[in-house]
Amino acid sequence: MTIKAVVFDAYGTLYDIQSVASITEEMFPGYGEIITQVWRIKQLEYTWLRSLMRRYQDFSVITRESLAYTLRCLGLEYDSGAFERVMEKYLHLEFYPDALAALAAMRDRKLAILSNGSTAMLTALVKNSGLDRVLDATISVDTKKIFKPAPEAYSLIEAVLGVPPAEVLFVSSNPWDACGAKAFGLNVAWIERVTPEAMALACVKSDVVAPITMFKAIRTQMDELGIEPDYRIHALSELPGLVAAHES
Amino acid sequence: MTIKAVVFDAYGTLYDIQSVASITEEMFPGYGEIITQVWRIKQLEYTWLRSLMRRYQDFSVITRESLAYTLRCLGLEYDSGAFERVMEKYLHLEFYPDALAALAAMRDRKLAILSNGSTAMLTALVKNSGLDRVLDATISVDTKKIFKPAPEAYSLIEAVLGVPPAEVLFVSSNPWDACGAKAFGLNVAWIERVTPEAMALACVKSDVVAPITMFKAIRTQMDELGIEPDYRIHALSELPGLVAAHES
Repeated sequence: MTIKAVVFDAYGTLYDIQSVASITEEMFPGYGEIITQVWRIKQLEYTWLRSLMRRYQDFSVITRESLAYTLRCLGLEYDSGAFERVMEKYLHLEFYPDALAALAAMRDRKLAILSNGSTAMLTALVKNSGLDRVLDATISVDTKKIFKPAPEAYSLIEAVLGVPPAEVLFVSSNPWDACGAKAFGLNVAWIERVTPEAMALACVKSDVVAPITMFKAIRTQMDELGIEPDYRIHALSELPGLVAAHES
Repeated sequence: MTIKAVVFDAYGTLYDIQSVASITEEMFPGYGEIITQVWRIKQLEYTWLRSLMRRYQDFSVITRESLAYTLRCLGLEYDSGAFERVMEKYLHLEFYPDALAALAAMRDRKLAILSNGSTAMLTALVKNSGLDRVLDATISVDTKKIFKPAPEAYSLIEAVLGVPPAEVLFVSSNPWDACGAKAFGLNVAWIERVTPEAMALACVKSDVVAPITMFKAIRTQMDELGIEPDYRIHALSELPGLVAAHES
């Protein structure tokens, strides 16, 4: 089956959300890493909880509320200037180094983002990083008022691009997102950026299990949801070869 | 308005899920606390993810899969005997010390549990702890094939007890559960077992932020979901007085 469209998750897949750690550390010295990890866990939890509660708010609201929660939980004082500087980083996230070359090498396919991000956040992020010149579409779940991994979110790919699930390769580094896309019926490549061996080693090495290691582990190791993605890759640079091989 | 029924969450509210830490520590020395915390985070994540993906499996499956994930993430080897001994604890969780007296003091109301647990798990747990002699009903979300905080789950209270939401007091220590119940329209008492001051102090005291402290914090501090429970209490023993005051 031909792959007519390659569709990417944004946060954590094309864009390195861990790159907020520099600004969180600058604003809250000594707490940069723990803020980054707890913020992400809560941001995701709130997307799932609000979806289930039928209390959808867009991703910019959720990102603010999860940051506020994180700072409160850590007992950190702050003014609105510091808060806004951290939030602003979400519109200027760094690319993974191999993202641009991988996209350029697949220009003969439709290329798109499907993200939890709000339309305004994604538009700014894609423009600030120059990806608007490469992508055919930037799709926000916002029109469906429900977040991934709900099937309604993944259904937007066919609705916007006109390509059926069997001819789409969906790419995500988020284990739950890869599982959700596969459950929906897309072809899925999961990017495993941290191997289990590296993770286990990091745990064993520390006398007390390092908090940051475990917080990262529960966001990067494949989940136990009874679903396996079709492909397990380690970097975006593997994608052009994978797409070609899929068709032969 | 009269409170005709007081309905309790089970895990973390009447029963202390932290009490699994003794058996996880016995089976995996040095890892008891971190297993307990990560297991709980993943257990909850999987209820939300499977609900959204429309891939419901009952809570016993999710509890097994989240434990398997946790042990794999930590790089721990184990045999099926150790795994089953840890799992078994979920059928013999300890009560919070003030649970029985609080229930006894409200025997003039309908008393029930509404839990994510499977019917088999809840039946065993309630029987093993002797609560079957006090409760009018033990309600599992299993009949709806979706987990809390979906409204379908909370709708089971009226369906089973015949008491409308406005005459129910729902009690949970889980912040997301308290918010979900309130969003549905129940009267809600949230049990805040760890105060923000205690949590912030624990963070400040440790040179590096203690992992266990933060893992516990993100499960016990009130979430930022735009919803406030009606009551914030610190122990189950406050409930009889609260129910009486609500009516006056």
